[in-house]
Amino acid sequence: MLMHILAAAALTVAQSESGSAQKETPPNIVVLFADDLGYGDLSCYGHPTIRTPHLDRMAAEGMRFTQFYSAAEVCTPSRAGLLTGRLPIRSGMCSDRRRVLFPDSSGGLPDDEITIAEALKGKGYATACIGKWHLGHLPQYLPTRHGFDFYFGVPYSNDMHNKQRGDPPVPLMRGEETIEQPVDQTTLTQRYTTEAVRFIRQSKARPFFLYVPHTFPHVPLFVSEKFRGTSRAGLYGDVVEELDWSVGQILQALRDEGLSERTLVIFTSDNGPWLTQKDRGGSAGLLRDGKGSTWEGGMREPAIAWWPGTIKPGSVCQELATTMDIFTTSLTIAGVPIPSDRTIDGKNLMPVFRGGKSECEAVYFYRGTRLMAVRKGPFKAHFITQSAYGPDSQRPESHDPPLLFNLDVDPAERFDVAKNHPNVLTEIAREVERHLGELKQGKPQLDEILGK
Amino acid sequence: MLMHILAAAALTVAQSESGSAQKETPPNIVVLFADDLGYGDLSCYGHPTIRTPHLDRMAAEGMRFTQFYSAAEVCTPSRAGLLTGRLPIRSGMCSDRRRVLFPDSSGGLPDDEITIAEALKGKGYATACIGKWHLGHLPQYLPTRHGFDFYFGVPYSNDMHNKQRGDPPVPLMRGEETIEQPVDQTTLTQRYTTEAVRFIRQSKARPFFLYVPHTFPHVPLFVSEKFRGTSRAGLYGDVVEELDWSVGQILQALRDEGLSERTLVIFTSDNGPWLTQKDRGGSAGLLRDGKGSTWEGGMREPAIAWWPGTIKPGSVCQELATTMDIFTTSLTIAGVPIPSDRTIDGKNLMPVFRGGKSECEAVYFYRGTRLMAVRKGPFKAHFITQSAYGPDSQRPESHDPPLLFNLDVDPAERFDVAKNHPNVLTEIAREVERHLGELKQGKPQLDEILGK
Repeated sequence: MLMHILAAAALTVAQSESGSAQKETPPNIVVLFADDLGYGDLSCYGHPTIRTPHLDRMAAEGMRFTQFYSAAEVCTPSRAGLLTGRLPIRSGMCSDRRRVLFPDSSGGLPDDEITIAEALKGKGYATACIGKWHLGHLPQYLPTRHGFDFYFGVPYSNDMHNKQRGDPPVPLMRGEETIEQPVDQTTLTQRYTTEAVRFIRQSKARPFFLYVPHTFPHVPLFVSEKFRGTSRAGLYGDVVEELDWSVGQILQALRDEGLSERTLVIFTSDNGPWLTQKDRGGSAGLLRDGKGSTWEGGMREPAIAWWPGTIKPGSVCQELATTMDIFTTSLTIAGVPIPSDRTIDGKNLMPVFRGGKSECEAVYFYRGTRLMAVRKGPFKAHFITQSAYGPDSQRPESHDPPLLFNLDVDPAERFDVAKNHPNVLTEIAREVERHLGELKQGKPQLDEILGK
Repeated sequence: MLMHILAAAALTVAQSESGSAQKETPPNIVVLFADDLGYGDLSCYGHPTIRTPHLDRMAAEGMRFTQFYSAAEVCTPSRAGLLTGRLPIRSGMCSDRRRVLFPDSSGGLPDDEITIAEALKGKGYATACIGKWHLGHLPQYLPTRHGFDFYFGVPYSNDMHNKQRGDPPVPLMRGEETIEQPVDQTTLTQRYTTEAVRFIRQSKARPFFLYVPHTFPHVPLFVSEKFRGTSRAGLYGDVVEELDWSVGQILQALRDEGLSERTLVIFTSDNGPWLTQKDRGGSAGLLRDGKGSTWEGGMREPAIAWWPGTIKPGSVCQELATTMDIFTTSLTIAGVPIPSDRTIDGKNLMPVFRGGKSECEAVYFYRGTRLMAVRKGPFKAHFITQSAYGPDSQRPESHDPPLLFNLDVDPAERFDVAKNHPNVLTEIAREVERHLGELKQGKPQLDEILGK
């Protein structure tokens, strides 16, 4: 809510980027967010048969990250983290029982959380959310109540029509109205793209914030006629290639409107590949495990930033970054003060975009409300591990001392080096103590069920 | 030997490429060959912390292959395949007992095999082998006896100084003389590069064939002072980054000499990463297993072809290709007839370089002399599997019916689909029957030991 922002901003004035930005029109911001896309699923991240020429070009014209993390290992908390710049544990948007929101959930993103859209509206930004929301489907939680002028999309995951649970068919919404139920999923990517391009064309006179959380490649997979059977990598490949096409359309619209040099576009995904779906799920490439786990494959994502004239073309960035940084970066370049009444975990990526160092000192890997692992520099300590698939998926395993991996040397988390680095373990233990000491957990939002 | 070539060529006249090439100076050919580099080890193939800006640029200016195979799962047979265009089983350059040549081996590449260097010499090519040979260290097997005007390098692998076996220290040779023993391995990549650049400068008036089989990243790893400790990915990363630097130097020399548009450069590796070496070995990315196995990780390689003006910049090629194609392609563009008195397995890659289809219909996966698997189109049937590391590495496992994977959809070989594709199994069985029916095994070269 805007009220909160004004209060939150009272004490802080954003520096550096905002000085000049306040005089000119601040840049547009576009966030393209895939669902369950794995680290290894794009051609420019090494996939051998999925063709992603538009994302490859985006990377060639921009910056490709290799150590970019989502805020969580599953959908709802990940999205909360991105839009608020805060670990989902702080907003209560994570849970050990119900890992995400369901159609019978009565909770959602709390009103007192500040989303990027809310923060930017005060600067005159036009704001749109086009795609899968998954931060509460009741009216009071919809995108339109969280700073978005415009909403078009589905309120939660495309598989959430469990008849035993009493789920209704998955609806498609425009604003706060259901316009189609069940939604025709085959044309969703096409329709999101059309809406996104239209929004860009309509909003070009103002600065705008466009958030496109795609429904796919989350299972069940659907693809338009145009893409069906066209990839070598099966239906999953078709779906990712249609997503790639969508990215190409959106970037081309920006070019056509002459907005390239004043628009930051970031493409990434909410969590790793859904490995239990077998050949319907994606690949984490060389990383271990996938969606739902706090192994690298669950939370390290493909991520590409594009801003011609500001980001050097063809950069490969090995700096630590997270989706929560999108919040802080967006506010900074828009000249909006970072809220000072709450902990913001995201860092400003502008120095990184300019080839400098990341301000991100540690990455926290939560599974629900449990802190499972912490990364500091190249080292990641796992206190608890739990695979998201296969025989190990049923039971968490605690580690004391923690497992320790040097991710720079061993990105696949194969060789425990805890014995060789007692000092690192000490340092990480201190980091955890500090973190947990200052942590204020938000009121849990995911476990309440409608009518119960 | 040249005599063999003339005889072999009598009946065949190379077509298409040679017509015009014979009038002008034919193009130069440079083959840069890494040792034990994995599919996932380059930045442009998705490695998160190894920086390979020169290879990335080579790919951006050329063609990056995603389905490119070495001729074998280990070193000696792989090199025999590349230089002769023939499966190593045909030249006798593979074995089940001793998988490669050792310093006490008395065999080597037979005199009646035709190497690329021999074939091209007849067209006036200057030829050089700079790096690790590993096709016989006795004088009669050295590069200088197989068509290379110039040789500088080590005769076999850099770890082959086993005192119990009575190995001498690893020598460095120039021509047929040992010039340093033990070789200082820390400067090898630098020295290979210097020699390669010098050869290019000296040979620029003629067409030339330059073969640079690097010693690294084969274990033990050595790197020059300049690169030591500079990568984020440990010593392995340092070594690969020095290799990348070397590629950059060689490409720059070609640019400086104005040879870019008349030089085909191919970069690839002899086999997959050496996984038993743990963090000293590389990564096969999303592929299964590594060096020594016939799972994809053992034989699918990073491969980049560069030929400005002929190959479209930034191409990603999903066509099937093998290192044996380098033989046939080289002869074709040099206007040399393909030998007709023997089976040549390599195909001409020129159509592929121009964006067309591969002529490669099947890939044979031998482990020593055993045919373990066959790939036809997207399908790979495993008759026998054996991991190269871990508990499964000690015993081959036979499969009847074979395991069948659709590599386009499932590059990681996770989901056996044999039951769904009986026709594919029949077709592959027919392919195997045809192949084994025409197969003439060469006299075994790898098992004889000096003085025994």
